[in-house]
Amino acid sequence: MNKHAYISMARGDQPVDLVFKNANIVNVFTKTIEQGNLAVSDGIIIGIGDYNGKEEIDLKGAYIAPGFIDGHVHIESSMLTPEHYAQITIPRGTTTVLADCHEIANVLGKEGIDFMLSSSEKSIQDVFMMIPSCVPATPFESSGAVLNARDIEPYKNHPRVKGLGEMMDYVGAVNGHEDVLSKIQDYSDKVIDGHAPGLMGKDLNAYVLAGVETDHECVEAKELIEKVKRGMYIHLREGSQTKNVLDLIPGLSADYYQRILLCSDDLHPFDMRHSGHIDHNINLAIQAGIDPIQAISMATINSANCYRLYKRGAIAPGYIADLVIFDDLSSIDVKRVYKKGQLVAENHKALFNVQVNIPETVLNTVHIHPKKMDFTMTLKSNVVWAIGLIKNNVSTEKLKETVWLDNHQFNCKDNPGYLKLAVIERHHQTGHIGLGIVKGYGLKHGAVAMTIAHDSHNIICLGDSDRDMHLAVERIEMIGGGIVLVSKGKVVSEIQLDVAGLMSSNNADYVIQQLNDLETHIKAMGINPEIEDPFLQLAFLSLPVIPKLKVTDLGLFDVDQFKIIPLEVSESK
Amino acid sequence: MNKHAYISMARGDQPVDLVFKNANIVNVFTKTIEQGNLAVSDGIIIGIGDYNGKEEIDLKGAYIAPGFIDGHVHIESSMLTPEHYAQITIPRGTTTVLADCHEIANVLGKEGIDFMLSSSEKSIQDVFMMIPSCVPATPFESSGAVLNARDIEPYKNHPRVKGLGEMMDYVGAVNGHEDVLSKIQDYSDKVIDGHAPGLMGKDLNAYVLAGVETDHECVEAKELIEKVKRGMYIHLREGSQTKNVLDLIPGLSADYYQRILLCSDDLHPFDMRHSGHIDHNINLAIQAGIDPIQAISMATINSANCYRLYKRGAIAPGYIADLVIFDDLSSIDVKRVYKKGQLVAENHKALFNVQVNIPETVLNTVHIHPKKMDFTMTLKSNVVWAIGLIKNNVSTEKLKETVWLDNHQFNCKDNPGYLKLAVIERHHQTGHIGLGIVKGYGLKHGAVAMTIAHDSHNIICLGDSDRDMHLAVERIEMIGGGIVLVSKGKVVSEIQLDVAGLMSSNNADYVIQQLNDLETHIKAMGINPEIEDPFLQLAFLSLPVIPKLKVTDLGLFDVDQFKIIPLEVSESK
Repeated sequence: MNKHAYISMARGDQPVDLVFKNANIVNVFTKTIEQGNLAVSDGIIIGIGDYNGKEEIDLKGAYIAPGFIDGHVHIESSMLTPEHYAQITIPRGTTTVLADCHEIANVLGKEGIDFMLSSSEKSIQDVFMMIPSCVPATPFESSGAVLNARDIEPYKNHPRVKGLGEMMDYVGAVNGHEDVLSKIQDYSDKVIDGHAPGLMGKDLNAYVLAGVETDHECVEAKELIEKVKRGMYIHLREGSQTKNVLDLIPGLSADYYQRILLCSDDLHPFDMRHSGHIDHNINLAIQAGIDPIQAISMATINSANCYRLYKRGAIAPGYIADLVIFDDLSSIDVKRVYKKGQLVAENHKALFNVQVNIPETVLNTVHIHPKKMDFTMTLKSNVVWAIGLIKNNVSTEKLKETVWLDNHQFNCKDNPGYLKLAVIERHHQTGHIGLGIVKGYGLKHGAVAMTIAHDSHNIICLGDSDRDMHLAVERIEMIGGGIVLVSKGKVVSEIQLDVAGLMSSNNADYVIQQLNDLETHIKAMGINPEIEDPFLQLAFLSLPVIPKLKVTDLGLFDVDQFKIIPLEVSESK
Repeated sequence: MNKHAYISMARGDQPVDLVFKNANIVNVFTKTIEQGNLAVSDGIIIGIGDYNGKEEIDLKGAYIAPGFIDGHVHIESSMLTPEHYAQITIPRGTTTVLADCHEIANVLGKEGIDFMLSSSEKSIQDVFMMIPSCVPATPFESSGAVLNARDIEPYKNHPRVKGLGEMMDYVGAVNGHEDVLSKIQDYSDKVIDGHAPGLMGKDLNAYVLAGVETDHECVEAKELIEKVKRGMYIHLREGSQTKNVLDLIPGLSADYYQRILLCSDDLHPFDMRHSGHIDHNINLAIQAGIDPIQAISMATINSANCYRLYKRGAIAPGYIADLVIFDDLSSIDVKRVYKKGQLVAENHKALFNVQVNIPETVLNTVHIHPKKMDFTMTLKSNVVWAIGLIKNNVSTEKLKETVWLDNHQFNCKDNPGYLKLAVIERHHQTGHIGLGIVKGYGLKHGAVAMTIAHDSHNIICLGDSDRDMHLAVERIEMIGGGIVLVSKGKVVSEIQLDVAGLMSSNNADYVIQQLNDLETHIKAMGINPEIEDPFLQLAFLSLPVIPKLKVTDLGLFDVDQFKIIPLEVSESK
């Protein structure tokens, strides 16, 4: 159909495809509810008024709002490919996402980005991509690929690429490092996403001056306010591990609601199914006292404005007919979702199937050095640096601990409460293994291994027995990536994440079921009951950009010193 | 200087060019006043904080705000070329304008657009251009040029072109006319300005659906609210002739201040000097109760957002250092203006000179048919259609009047209170002359002629004596365009507008002086004291897109019927 026809329909001279009658239309421009009829044809909104449709649906006063936009998400963290991700998030009202494929890029570089672009191409959800800016996140780990400015520059011309992904190398940006500035320069006519936890004052000025425009890492009101003042758009994030919405709401004011967006960042499919997706952020905001239409605006028009998504995020003539329907404005429970004018979800269920074809390029990505791995820890001193866990937090504590050594060897059986952590390079068979000691996780008689290990996604393995750790890692290699739980010499539960070791080629039902099974089993193995998500907590123990003590395949990493350190506390300390 | 240096300055590692100390900084993001020091280097804002500068200026608590943006202006209406326009508007704080060169395009087509682009290139003011969409405005007049979609398409690639100028052919848009849709399609990745007085309901849906995104023609609150609801940005216009700010403010709400912009549209230099420019709109809004920072935001960040002017319209790191300084937030009187970090105006005076070089292409644009003009009116009936003036309004009344005819001839001397209006084609020597009768203007013993006659800018001439009318038009031709006032066979005052017959190559002082002289003289010639601006009132008597009765070079034009009609009222009516 062409524009002449749409215009004729808008005038009322010919019938539209579909009219929602008696709707309470959420107008994100005026922040009002407009009672009336909404006309849609061919996937676009024709108008609001007295229209006749070939199909007419009486909404009987139900609310209709623009489809929600997740302003920053790593689809890989759902362990689902984009098509299956759409299947679980569209029923919660998310019709558009800004996806940063940082995780798979760390495994597969450009082939990873290409896969995410191509697999999302035919997704019913609109996936706009932010191209990863920091692969790897630091030089103190071995990622599957290194992407410099020249590698990522060509992606800026892709029609669904909206900018540069989170600039987590804020130290590089603030200090004007050449490659960082080149990347920003190349993407200067697009949006530059930020990632700068706690950055304030002059360093924040420098970061914004470098070109960064958004931030989703605020943890307190004061930080949010300063970042808005400096011109940033701020995402209120509610992920599975990192939850900031309620902490940040005291920093909001009606004077700058339009600078606020909502995002999930990293969200497990279990949480999506039980708590929701961006609808959950909206509901949290409403419960905390934000006007519902303003909360909806944060998830729609505000994101559209920030990411320069024109004719999206509002109900107005010519806008994309992405629509969500619900009954109660004070607690949004999405009943029906229309994508480009088509009913695609009802009562939390997707009404479409997806066929996933996974190319060879993203399969079989686990390549360990053939030499037998060595997890023995031979130490010169029994005073060691150990990693202390912090509940529901990706940061850790740096603990000075006195342990029992047996002929200079550290073993878990001699040291109850401590576990061995190993990060095994799995991309290029280098044989690198980094080791550390973890306190407070509490696993007994077993080991867990996984290929989700931020951000390089080597194999991370935690256990109290070298034998079980070996078995878990070998099983990971055999299934081509995933999460494997071993107890007393046996695999007790696992999930295969065959796509880059990060995502399943299977659907959300499979992933949720396996994760539930894994969780049930690991929780029966004596882990600290304070740990809500044992696998997420583990996945971030290798992330060297978040304080304080982490392990990469190159060794124990002190984030404050930004260097690899020995396990033993040196004499002088 | 390069970005590395700026970033280093932002960190505080090297001194900046200039620091404004003890400033009350207007933060348009948070709508707050931030007390602090503002650092600027090399024309960009480095940061807010404790900085050291090579030069430091103690503002002693004065306010500093982003430079103002006029969201929609026809520079030609100032009768000044862009360089001289900057000289008079920059001292009022306007550092950026969105200019629609619709007037000169009607005279000179692409050569006119080219002139405005090139002459504004080196202006100290940043002139972004909206390319005229409707040249001519209607087929019922002879403009100097016709610009179809193919003619204007190439301009979209010019770096200072931000979109398509006001789509005043709203009838064409609402009815999906091919050439209108082609123009919009060509500019679909830019902003499409609207111009749709009174358009509401389904026709407004159709207009917005066609792609139009802004409107500056709202005259009442209800209309503004409906247009905001449909997704439009709305300009509050305060021109010399058309003043809407105070009428529209009752339609505003804090919930959608961000969709509101300010503009001047058509403003005489006399008004700029005496009342100001966009600062005047801001002050009117403040006086009417709008929060001052919100009013400033309408003239800064809101326009920047609408027109996709990035890093402009706010005081934040990396933004252009266009700054205005004033002492009182409740009534803004701009004391100093900085453009790209340089002091360019102080106490309402520009601190820069301009050198204007006018190319031959835009001079000598008055070309009348050599045959003697005939202003005689031979009528079949003494009941005629006359144009009735409405105070300070570009609309007119359509009056049915009984006049005295002398041997079928209408003469003013027999009909006190009526004047002859003639519109003489002046672009292509066609010899077209359209005639009409005007009631309520009141000129005695003379004639006024001018080459400003919206929108085709033929010669418009009003008088009570054919002899004086002839003389005025001949003088216009002799000086190459302008305004000429004749009384009893003598030129009593004039201004030469040598550039396309619309603008002077001279500066604002000259233009204001000549206009004052003209006004003094014309007001002494018995004109209706209710007419505030006799020349503006005249200039719109040929504009065939505004109701009700106008005259073009093709004859008397009935806007409601949208056709040329005879002077005489036909028998059947």
